[in-house]
Amino acid sequence: MAQLRIALAQTNPAVGDLTANADKLLDWTRRAADRGAHLVAFTEMFLTGYPVEDLVLRTSFVDASIAALDEAAARLAAEGLGDLPVVVGYVDRAGLAPRVGQPKGAPLDAAAVLHGGRVVVRTAKHHLPNYGVFDEYRYFVRGDRLPVFRLHGVDVAVAVCEDLWQDGGPVAVARQAGAGLLVVPNASPYEREKDDVRLALVSRRAREAGCALAYVNQVGGQDELVFDGDSIVVGADGELIARAAQFSEELLIADLSLPLAGPVPGTGTEPVDAGDGTTITVERVTLSTEPVAAYAAEPGTVAPRLSHPAEVYTALVLGVRDYVGKNGFSSVILGLSGGIDSALTATIAADAIGPERVYGVMMPSAYSSEHSVGDAKDLVERQGLNARVVPIEGMVAAFEKEIALSGLAAENLQARVRGMILMSLSNEHGHLVLTTGNKSEVATGYSTLYGDSAGGYAPIKDVPKTMVWELSKWRNAQAGVESEFLHGFAVPPVPENSIVKEPSAELRPDQRDTDSLPPYEVLDRLLDDYVERDMGKGELIAAGHDPDLVMRVIRLVDVAEYKRRQYPPGPKITPKNFGRDRRLPITNRWRES
Amino acid sequence: MAQLRIALAQTNPAVGDLTANADKLLDWTRRAADRGAHLVAFTEMFLTGYPVEDLVLRTSFVDASIAALDEAAARLAAEGLGDLPVVVGYVDRAGLAPRVGQPKGAPLDAAAVLHGGRVVVRTAKHHLPNYGVFDEYRYFVRGDRLPVFRLHGVDVAVAVCEDLWQDGGPVAVARQAGAGLLVVPNASPYEREKDDVRLALVSRRAREAGCALAYVNQVGGQDELVFDGDSIVVGADGELIARAAQFSEELLIADLSLPLAGPVPGTGTEPVDAGDGTTITVERVTLSTEPVAAYAAEPGTVAPRLSHPAEVYTALVLGVRDYVGKNGFSSVILGLSGGIDSALTATIAADAIGPERVYGVMMPSAYSSEHSVGDAKDLVERQGLNARVVPIEGMVAAFEKEIALSGLAAENLQARVRGMILMSLSNEHGHLVLTTGNKSEVATGYSTLYGDSAGGYAPIKDVPKTMVWELSKWRNAQAGVESEFLHGFAVPPVPENSIVKEPSAELRPDQRDTDSLPPYEVLDRLLDDYVERDMGKGELIAAGHDPDLVMRVIRLVDVAEYKRRQYPPGPKITPKNFGRDRRLPITNRWRES
Repeated sequence: MAQLRIALAQTNPAVGDLTANADKLLDWTRRAADRGAHLVAFTEMFLTGYPVEDLVLRTSFVDASIAALDEAAARLAAEGLGDLPVVVGYVDRAGLAPRVGQPKGAPLDAAAVLHGGRVVVRTAKHHLPNYGVFDEYRYFVRGDRLPVFRLHGVDVAVAVCEDLWQDGGPVAVARQAGAGLLVVPNASPYEREKDDVRLALVSRRAREAGCALAYVNQVGGQDELVFDGDSIVVGADGELIARAAQFSEELLIADLSLPLAGPVPGTGTEPVDAGDGTTITVERVTLSTEPVAAYAAEPGTVAPRLSHPAEVYTALVLGVRDYVGKNGFSSVILGLSGGIDSALTATIAADAIGPERVYGVMMPSAYSSEHSVGDAKDLVERQGLNARVVPIEGMVAAFEKEIALSGLAAENLQARVRGMILMSLSNEHGHLVLTTGNKSEVATGYSTLYGDSAGGYAPIKDVPKTMVWELSKWRNAQAGVESEFLHGFAVPPVPENSIVKEPSAELRPDQRDTDSLPPYEVLDRLLDDYVERDMGKGELIAAGHDPDLVMRVIRLVDVAEYKRRQYPPGPKITPKNFGRDRRLPITNRWRES
Repeated sequence: MAQLRIALAQTNPAVGDLTANADKLLDWTRRAADRGAHLVAFTEMFLTGYPVEDLVLRTSFVDASIAALDEAAARLAAEGLGDLPVVVGYVDRAGLAPRVGQPKGAPLDAAAVLHGGRVVVRTAKHHLPNYGVFDEYRYFVRGDRLPVFRLHGVDVAVAVCEDLWQDGGPVAVARQAGAGLLVVPNASPYEREKDDVRLALVSRRAREAGCALAYVNQVGGQDELVFDGDSIVVGADGELIARAAQFSEELLIADLSLPLAGPVPGTGTEPVDAGDGTTITVERVTLSTEPVAAYAAEPGTVAPRLSHPAEVYTALVLGVRDYVGKNGFSSVILGLSGGIDSALTATIAADAIGPERVYGVMMPSAYSSEHSVGDAKDLVERQGLNARVVPIEGMVAAFEKEIALSGLAAENLQARVRGMILMSLSNEHGHLVLTTGNKSEVATGYSTLYGDSAGGYAPIKDVPKTMVWELSKWRNAQAGVESEFLHGFAVPPVPENSIVKEPSAELRPDQRDTDSLPPYEVLDRLLDDYVERDMGKGELIAAGHDPDLVMRVIRLVDVAEYKRRQYPPGPKITPKNFGRDRRLPITNRWRES
């Protein structure tokens, strides 16, 4: 057996910022060297950021990615880091002749090993995910190589992300190639409780590959995706050796004891049946054959898991922080109604960027209850937010003077006046508008287009109402705690009254959400079955949902598609977030029957 | 040789309305029978409509599609049409075990032959498009059969849509199977000048398959897609025999003289190398062996092609008509500024649904020029639109009384007040709001979020400003013409002054579009190269575009992505319409350099 210290760079790249990502590569490689690592691995498409969507179909973008990789190799050597092999993801091209149905330029979701100032190995993702939030048949052609580089006598193979999720392919070939370690760069987005699935998967694939496995995942927010890190190292038996934190950048170090490789077989290039109907070519390269001198191994660190509400809440905070920061904003603005949705959204924002950069606007109308402004003011005081009051009666009256409106049109008008005030203040002062709608509303269309749905980012868009309450209570219970994701509020940041009072849009006298919708406990269970589980009418009724309610909610959800298309993005925390992972026609006459 | 009269049902199905589509199947099959056809072919996924997007991942939807097919076969027989074979597209499932990466339920983009009250043959699309507007790896698994049914002694094979566009697969296998006719149901969306490409392709594939080819395509609007029909029948030599109109429903009849098939080879089931790395199984079934009695063949009809502006204009009219009708609206409302964008949009709407169902709102501000309202009124009179004037000064003042706004924020406020008026009237009276922005604006972000970009459907979203003028002039030249797509206006419907005056948003004194943007002739050429052709900075400058302008426009286009995400859908007429076929991250630090 041979010792090897590996370092996994669980980091937060910026999509498209090749220069900043390359600087980060250098910085973290230096940190890995300082920790005595013999190998450092970065995440999938780290140099370009992930996902880059249609950018990958531009020749100039792929050119820039390839050039950035070569430059990074040279810079590492120039700065004395050339001896430390670096595994890093980038975008390459396959050099295939163009044909109909093939992504323009035949791009590859590639990974390379940098060593001695050069790119010594190149490979690319073999299994391309094209489900949920992924569209990779649109973007990439399939890689068909498994690089195996010998480092201090240990054979290290490299596969990419989805290659771990699907059967056959690089994992199977790694076993046949006799790899001692499989390094897997990832950009695997967060989803509730995905970390449990992930550890089980990594362990199983390590056993299948018959070698240790190092899984390194991105962190950070990118539009509606949040990457949660959770990098993992397991032994060949699948047992956990080290595990990084969720959502935080971390250089995860693991000391491994790995089998020494035998003589390089054949020519170093072997075609292997990948067990999935394809052939993968093993490409071997030797960096060093001498095992490292014996050293005292450190025990691997295993970061504690977050509780369910902590995990979701952290994803939302990170999503907001990165959307604000990576888009160049320095402050946010939102309407504060005194209700729980805006209270939770404000709290998330305060945790993300600090309360001093959060601007609340109270916009009472004739129908606002006394407690509304009071609860909003309470929120502002608890958190030290910036706040102002802008009554809307005058503006509403100005519209109603010119055009006669009744019923829903009059209700919507109030919501739209509020949306316009926020957008106007955003334009005037440069704040990003946060939208405060929750998933139950987004699902059923219980919102006003260009009214409460206006904004740049919607932090709780994927959070059902019942979970809004749960998260608010959880956050209040953390009062006094200060961390990377929690501002150190001394008192519970969410007013108790906002949590306990009955939900109301307050757009007409004595309005209650339950005038239009069933109780949220009932609604959210039904939405979960209909939206997340794709159950049809028959299945929903068989599962115990009220038949009339089933038909009513199905219709609400289906009809509201036109509104959702114009809803701002927000962090995804569930399998179906009404964004990239749920795509329905607007013009749609399908009715469950 | 044997005679065969085929009928291609170039029709307009409704997505999700299985009952209405099945009724239409029966109705058009009867029409084909009345015309003496021996075979009738409908379009791809005709029973379900196309595209159905994530509906296909629902078990209940696929169940309903399969049941609708069986019912249709039985109904045809019950109504005395069982002897006439019907080729029709629907959704089926492959019955594969679930696995990661495979669409849930393993759906098939299927086609069947109905005969004698039964489904006698089933097949499915082999080549799945996953580029541009298509995401079919998300939705379908690959078909691997080529059905060949013997009808009156002629062997007829069936392939589906994309199978014609990609090399290898069903076309190659049709030749090996000795088919006498290849029938291809399609749902192929319109794109400028696609009809030229289409005829050349159909001819080439007929020669490759060594047999006559019948290409039947859908018509109609579906969200941002417009299907343009243009069904085609060619002989084995690729020569055109018959061609249907663009954009109109039509039962295209063609009398063919086809080779009589020999004895059925082998068992009737043969695996064949498809030449694309896959194996396709030929499945033969015999419906009838006796050739039809000799009859007097009619010459095929070839509908005249539309001119370039006529083609684009018709696509827009059909897109609007179907978005309005299929979504259950009966009228539209839009702002009339006196400018060319709103004038053209109103004209398209009047042609689509009749001027009596178009409601124009003139919303002058302090900065509106005298000619603005005058030109808008001229438009209203020329077309007999419904119209009203709602001055916005009072509402703008009501906002400015509460919040201090300057510069762009004040300009945006006016646009948003107008957007709110239209949305309010829409809510009150049930009109669909049409958005009047053109592609040059949408590309550069020269619009106000929730202002002029508010609405349900954006008819000229994919029309560059220079083409807006071209289409307006073309439409005026059609004055006096009345057709399926043109209302019979006696006078030119677009005021000449709206065409010739200098474009201005009129949001501040003496504002001109050229204060913010280069002249549209220059801008549109640059946008075409950057957006449609994906040229990078270097290529754009090499192509002769001004370097400073290149950098400025690239930045404008990239930054405006967040606005485009919330823009309403509109009919697609170009390769890249800022909709389904151009997908970029909002959080994006990629800059051409």
